[in-house]
Amino acid sequence: MAKFMDVHRGMMGITGEQLEQAHSADIAIQDEEGVTFEHAWADPEEGVLYCLSEAPDAEAVQRIHERAGHPADEIHSVPLTI
Amino acid sequence: MAKFMDVHRGMMGITGEQLEQAHSADIAIQDEEGVTFEHAWADPEEGVLYCLSEAPDAEAVQRIHERAGHPADEIHSVPLTI
Repeated sequence: MAKFMDVHRGMMGITGEQLEQAHSADIAIQDEEGVTFEHAWADPEEGVLYCLSEAPDAEAVQRIHERAGHPADEIHSVPLTI
Repeated sequence: MAKFMDVHRGMMGITGEQLEQAHSADIAIQDEEGVTFEHAWADPEEGVLYCLSEAPDAEAVQRIHERAGHPADEIHSVPLTI
């Protein structure tokens, strides 16, 4: 298992409720790929969303995001954490 | 106070020790701007570093990073968090 930070762009105006819904859609199916979504942070003004997860690989993270209807624009392996 | 996610690029090959040193340099002076750096995640392969903080504003975050010798490339206010 490894840590991943993924980035979603074009989310201008996202609300707290929409973020909760998107996160819940990921959580509902994350076990099928062995992914655990831990946190998400959104900047509604610039439309950027960061999502931290633990997963077997980046492809597993993306498969969950795609099936939940919001594929990530970038997924970074972040082996160094503080 | 608000949450900020800042992004540093061009950090290819950063080591855990270098990340610790950079973070410590921020921590040492963060109180002077009322900033609290909470976490950092680095992708050494693609050279991207994400840094989560609580601060009065984005400018305060940047002043600390600049004085510590590593200005951020982007700083996003992230009022929505999970």
